[in-house]
Amino acid sequence: MRLADLPTPCLVLDRDILQRNLDTMAQCLERHRVALRPHMKTAKSIDVARLATAGQPGGITVSTLAEAEYFAGHSVTDILYAVGITPQKLDKIAKLNGAGAAVIVLTDDLDVAEAIASHPRPPRALIEIDTGEGRGGVAPDDDMLLAVAARLGSCLAGVMTHAGHSYAGRSLEAIAEIAEVERAGAVRAAERLRAAGHAVPIVSMGSSPTVRHAGRLDGVTEVRAGVYMFGDLFQAEIGTHDLDSVALTVLTSVIGRRPGRLLVDAGGLALSKDRSTADAPRDYGFGLVLDVAGKRSFGDAIVRRAYQEHGVLEADPAYPLDFSVGAKLRIAPNHTCMTAAAHDRYFVVAGSDEVVAIWPRVNGW
Amino acid sequence: MRLADLPTPCLVLDRDILQRNLDTMAQCLERHRVALRPHMKTAKSIDVARLATAGQPGGITVSTLAEAEYFAGHSVTDILYAVGITPQKLDKIAKLNGAGAAVIVLTDDLDVAEAIASHPRPPRALIEIDTGEGRGGVAPDDDMLLAVAARLGSCLAGVMTHAGHSYAGRSLEAIAEIAEVERAGAVRAAERLRAAGHAVPIVSMGSSPTVRHAGRLDGVTEVRAGVYMFGDLFQAEIGTHDLDSVALTVLTSVIGRRPGRLLVDAGGLALSKDRSTADAPRDYGFGLVLDVAGKRSFGDAIVRRAYQEHGVLEADPAYPLDFSVGAKLRIAPNHTCMTAAAHDRYFVVAGSDEVVAIWPRVNGW
Repeated sequence: MRLADLPTPCLVLDRDILQRNLDTMAQCLERHRVALRPHMKTAKSIDVARLATAGQPGGITVSTLAEAEYFAGHSVTDILYAVGITPQKLDKIAKLNGAGAAVIVLTDDLDVAEAIASHPRPPRALIEIDTGEGRGGVAPDDDMLLAVAARLGSCLAGVMTHAGHSYAGRSLEAIAEIAEVERAGAVRAAERLRAAGHAVPIVSMGSSPTVRHAGRLDGVTEVRAGVYMFGDLFQAEIGTHDLDSVALTVLTSVIGRRPGRLLVDAGGLALSKDRSTADAPRDYGFGLVLDVAGKRSFGDAIVRRAYQEHGVLEADPAYPLDFSVGAKLRIAPNHTCMTAAAHDRYFVVAGSDEVVAIWPRVNGW
Repeated sequence: MRLADLPTPCLVLDRDILQRNLDTMAQCLERHRVALRPHMKTAKSIDVARLATAGQPGGITVSTLAEAEYFAGHSVTDILYAVGITPQKLDKIAKLNGAGAAVIVLTDDLDVAEAIASHPRPPRALIEIDTGEGRGGVAPDDDMLLAVAARLGSCLAGVMTHAGHSYAGRSLEAIAEIAEVERAGAVRAAERLRAAGHAVPIVSMGSSPTVRHAGRLDGVTEVRAGVYMFGDLFQAEIGTHDLDSVALTVLTSVIGRRPGRLLVDAGGLALSKDRSTADAPRDYGFGLVLDVAGKRSFGDAIVRRAYQEHGVLEADPAYPLDFSVGAKLRIAPNHTCMTAAAHDRYFVVAGSDEVVAIWPRVNGW
């Protein structure tokens, strides 16, 4: 099967670029001697998880119960569910752990800590630390940290922070500074807990940009990153990787050609409505137009408008777009995590237009 | 099963509101004596299609091949696939039509018209007319109209237009004016084709706003509309329906409560990253916060930020949000079509918190 034969729109995953991205991250972490717990919220695929954990301790991070169940069902045991848990979700966690998994949960809440500790089959739990993102978590010096730890008791396994605001960094220096605040906050929280008599085996931090550009990771036991595997236009804009490292694209067909415009069958559903590059140095609309081989043959052509099933291309004046209806193109996405979620599988290529594998995804909740 | 027992995030569909929306549209069209061909791109559900076509001639509109295959598999025969067809997709259409369906395709292209007419099992086809949207279609007075018709020959079944730019209308008068241009353009194209000797049994126009507010529909044989079934915040803003007519919401759990902020487990994937209300009179962020019964109990509280799995709420100062982790809320979406697409089923309620049915959706392509 070749790309030209695939129904469109669909996801194309370049295994060579994926492997290069994984290798780059592995080298980066080797320097720091810190374990990687890859975040599977982007890929949601056991095939990708196997590649991403090769040579690593093997633990993964997930963002939904559906992912936890799916990966546990594929014999991945060490799973961190890195979204604040609710008491109602503990029974499903207990069921997974009763069947051999070791799912670790996350909280920053006294009542939830109580619910965890008093559950008939309590999971291990991390306390979420806010190191500046302003989303979930307690500040490293907040009294609540010790209160939640006391409630968790022997369930306490460590601390976790996510400097998602690193996405707003507009220089590698700025991202490195955020990474250091993230590291220092997580370590500070761990030290306070240890001083209060708690064991804190896990000190977890990370986002693709901060892990990639951290100057040091002392005191951190593991890092989490997800989007680095596939990359996207936004991550390229903030310097997590270069533009040639986007492993995931959407294959699309030209469905209309009118004077001055070209329509494709990748619209808001196939690409997502994510407009993260609107705030980046360079705005790619809803995605960058590539040729069917994934090469940047059309300069700065982008998807300017996205309807539900229609994308409207905007050509680079230096590279006129002249195609018949049915011609195939590829679109590099703004935000891989969002784009991939509309699709149930990857069509995998490796250095040619031949599809060498089809890898399913686990979507939903 | 009650809403409080459901895993979150998930879709809740209020059947009473859905039925009221369907009745409102039926009454509107009775006045015009025009057939409705409901667009199933929003609902993607045979259960909803049965309600939406009750009392109507029965034909539907779809936006993907997956929908066409799904509805044909549920014995819906009269299907308009209202996105420009590519030659490569004709074999699948032929297969459906060979098995008893009557899928009509759409084009505005000479080469595609040729491919349709020369296919071993040619489908009937409509010519797409551009009445101002600037997406697909030939202008009503364009010479290309007659050229495409000549190529289609006996496959020609009529004309179709979609005034999607009605979404930019900011008064009912403005939308009514766009509706009249849409109607007049479709009818003008049909008249030109008839003058050239073609039979034009189908003159199809529509979008939820223009169908709802058209002053007259003379010469139109059928209208298409989809989002009117469920409604959403954007459609409420442009006057397609009122705010109480939003039938579809996302059930979510509180997953964090920190001073000054509340987190829920409906983020960018569960709600979509659609920000259509950013350009509406009223900006709802990523959605309006309702109580678990679907009532507007929290004033103007909205989802201000949306991460992949986290939503961050912004309270209305007059209605403090005070919940435990695990408490359930509902979120009315900006754009129903985008929000629903992340979910594989509807949990249907009817006047209470009891789930009376689960209806699957057909996502993907």
